[in-house]
Amino acid sequence: MGRAAAIKPLREVQGWEDEADVIVVGLGAAGACAALEATSAGADTLVLERASGGGGTSALSTGQIYLGGGTPIQEKCGFEDSPEEMYKYLMASCGPGVDEPKIRLFCDHCVEHFHWLVAQGVPFKETYYGDGSYTPTDDCLSYSGSELAHPYRDVAKPAPRGHTVQQETIEAGAMLMRRLLESVDGCGARIQVDTLCETLVVDEQRRVVGVVARVDGSTRHLRARGGVILTAGGFINNTEMVERYAPMLRKCKMRLACDGDDGRGIRMGMGAGGEAVRMETASIVLPFTVPKTLIQGVMVNRQGQRFINEDAYQTVVGEAALHGQDGQVYLIVDDAIYEQPFPPTEIAAVGETFEELERELGFAEGSLQSTLELYNRNAERGEDPVFHKASPFLVPLVRPPFAALDYTTDTAIWAVFTMGGLRTAPDGAVLTPDGDVIPGLFAAGRTTSGLAAQGYSSGLSLADGTFFGRRAGRAAAAPVV
Amino acid sequence: MGRAAAIKPLREVQGWEDEADVIVVGLGAAGACAALEATSAGADTLVLERASGGGGTSALSTGQIYLGGGTPIQEKCGFEDSPEEMYKYLMASCGPGVDEPKIRLFCDHCVEHFHWLVAQGVPFKETYYGDGSYTPTDDCLSYSGSELAHPYRDVAKPAPRGHTVQQETIEAGAMLMRRLLESVDGCGARIQVDTLCETLVVDEQRRVVGVVARVDGSTRHLRARGGVILTAGGFINNTEMVERYAPMLRKCKMRLACDGDDGRGIRMGMGAGGEAVRMETASIVLPFTVPKTLIQGVMVNRQGQRFINEDAYQTVVGEAALHGQDGQVYLIVDDAIYEQPFPPTEIAAVGETFEELERELGFAEGSLQSTLELYNRNAERGEDPVFHKASPFLVPLVRPPFAALDYTTDTAIWAVFTMGGLRTAPDGAVLTPDGDVIPGLFAAGRTTSGLAAQGYSSGLSLADGTFFGRRAGRAAAAPVV
Repeated sequence: MGRAAAIKPLREVQGWEDEADVIVVGLGAAGACAALEATSAGADTLVLERASGGGGTSALSTGQIYLGGGTPIQEKCGFEDSPEEMYKYLMASCGPGVDEPKIRLFCDHCVEHFHWLVAQGVPFKETYYGDGSYTPTDDCLSYSGSELAHPYRDVAKPAPRGHTVQQETIEAGAMLMRRLLESVDGCGARIQVDTLCETLVVDEQRRVVGVVARVDGSTRHLRARGGVILTAGGFINNTEMVERYAPMLRKCKMRLACDGDDGRGIRMGMGAGGEAVRMETASIVLPFTVPKTLIQGVMVNRQGQRFINEDAYQTVVGEAALHGQDGQVYLIVDDAIYEQPFPPTEIAAVGETFEELERELGFAEGSLQSTLELYNRNAERGEDPVFHKASPFLVPLVRPPFAALDYTTDTAIWAVFTMGGLRTAPDGAVLTPDGDVIPGLFAAGRTTSGLAAQGYSSGLSLADGTFFGRRAGRAAAAPVV
Repeated sequence: MGRAAAIKPLREVQGWEDEADVIVVGLGAAGACAALEATSAGADTLVLERASGGGGTSALSTGQIYLGGGTPIQEKCGFEDSPEEMYKYLMASCGPGVDEPKIRLFCDHCVEHFHWLVAQGVPFKETYYGDGSYTPTDDCLSYSGSELAHPYRDVAKPAPRGHTVQQETIEAGAMLMRRLLESVDGCGARIQVDTLCETLVVDEQRRVVGVVARVDGSTRHLRARGGVILTAGGFINNTEMVERYAPMLRKCKMRLACDGDDGRGIRMGMGAGGEAVRMETASIVLPFTVPKTLIQGVMVNRQGQRFINEDAYQTVVGEAALHGQDGQVYLIVDDAIYEQPFPPTEIAAVGETFEELERELGFAEGSLQSTLELYNRNAERGEDPVFHKASPFLVPLVRPPFAALDYTTDTAIWAVFTMGGLRTAPDGAVLTPDGDVIPGLFAAGRTTSGLAAQGYSSGLSLADGTFFGRRAGRAAAAPVV
């Protein structure tokens, strides 16, 4: 993956090939929003993108942004929300080890952020879809986390906060980025694609003053008078970094990432003295919830036990299943609730009775049977005193044949991206292990550890990127305008 | 905790108050062994210790060192072992994400390392104690990991490898350090106590050339011609670092650490460009195995389920219980196996039947009952097809009253120290995020991520410290002698 942390001392720079007030490294959602705010603040802004065009992983995403606190769309669709309820939910679900100041700032200014996105031309339809990590229609609002599930439904008043950009098909991220890039094109920022930033230039006071970049096979030294903003994505596509920091993730088949997610931005920041934190964390999607009737199934481990309420958000189920159960999990269904799941997965075993299913799975005698008998007994009363799955999903499994859908990491498509990264102040300044600000260096998006220190709700990464990208743009512009 | 990562540029150093070939920061086991090898290689060695005397956390430990591959004591006690079997066990149990080259080197040279320790005056009695994380007598050898437990017993031929230094009482670490410090005293190294290293001095080529230290309220600049070795312990006593990197650890009551374990060494290394890895990992001791009959109990979570084979090593149980069960676990015993545990813990509930016990615990009806019925049914046949606990510990729980011993983190004494730290080459050189060596900078012991990237067996930290401390001492001396 090449070097990135080996910073270039200013004294070794013979001259600058170009300069700007603010240099943005990477043109995904975070980079676009940083560039928009930096230029809006009056800064001459240069955006460098290694690919041949902007978009990054944001353009490949579902285009769902976690927003709330009372947005016009929440109100239009009849959902009450407030910054306080949103704060309570995020504080409870994004931990342990949350960055409280970031969550506070985000909740307090979320409605304003929604309006800003609309002002950039990002379209949202004023409709409620339901719940899920993505919206296959052009609808907007959905429950995209564990708001309705135990224990969060008792911690904060539930509200749907997933705001999906209006576009037919799942990949609404393409529409988000089309509109943000159009806005960037018109804002006066200079965009230079096919430009790989190799490292940062640092002066004798350890201030970041520019970048070294490769363009067309030659090396360019680009000066940043105000600051450099790293918005270069995460590190799921860097096998060595995954092995060093989050080795369990290698079990997951699908990486929600573009080629650029090789950790270069994080390593550049570390080389300049930045601290990378929570590097073991990830968004781990175990996609077993489409169609929704499958949530009526019973998720078990190799010991035939349940381990979580199946209506917890699929990334929460995924995290528990990967780290607690080694990725060895099955969804038990009966003939009444079975439908072909999307994405499809294999059927590991079928049986006319729980006993036969248990035997076919090679589970210990009595293990799965006792789990399912206990589940059914309680589900008949509409209760789940063991794991507290909500009643709409509590249906006894009684109609044979019974089947075990194979959701082990060997078989099913688990989808992951990394959540650890540079530690930043809420304004985007990169911090050292001592908590000091590194002058001239900012970061946002998946190059940083953000709102979700651990537990994930869908839309939090685009929220991180867009909301804190804006702040980094303003902060980097401040010294020079 | 003060700054540590803010390195001092050489050009700002007006002059050196002292100098040496090798400077060792911290005088625990790693520092002592580094100093011994550095002086043995002919280097003028200066050891700096922030406390008023050497010892560090090593002196507070149980003095158990993980050694094997066929040591004289293993042979004397009739246990066959080989570097290959030891390698297989460590590769399987210390992951995921193990540092293979370190494990290979350690296994291949472990017998030599034993002889070296003996040559330093470290006493080992040629006796076998049994198994456990510590040896309350002056005996030596014990099973100190999961060698006999599923799945490791099938991966590698089991052998006891915990070598406890000879001393009556649990704290044999005091004897280890007494002897190592005597050896250091006679080796020609200069030892300076009450000296807090604040940061590293780095030249324009990013080479580490010395340290800045506080002595008697004044600042000293100390030059290292060959290298600086960071052996300053872990970070469990730095609340902010624990919150940023490993927030679950704050639930554990007891810190196996001295005051100096505040992460200063790690932060110094990061400031000079070193990469800190696996910062979320820890040795998590859930001490429920004394007296050993308690392993015949059944460990359950709040859902009344088992989650691990109870004969897995107590740190392995602790890790699974903290991260997978939120530290909410109970040990179910009957009147036949109950003895007062050491350390003592509270009894959460008592019942004449499983049903009563379940109700007293506030567990869901049928949850604990079905777990215990299944367990008993299998234990009667001497089997545990669900979690594979070994047969000596498989006894049905049949004699009332039954009790639940409270091992939740709120009540029981969970003991922890951190295992993450600087990434080093096997010779101790500190590496950057790009994998480059930082010239002049070395580290060993809990300031580094070592043999156990994750799963822990007792004695691995003293093994890390002594074995890789020696190598760091030699490597730091090499350029100048």
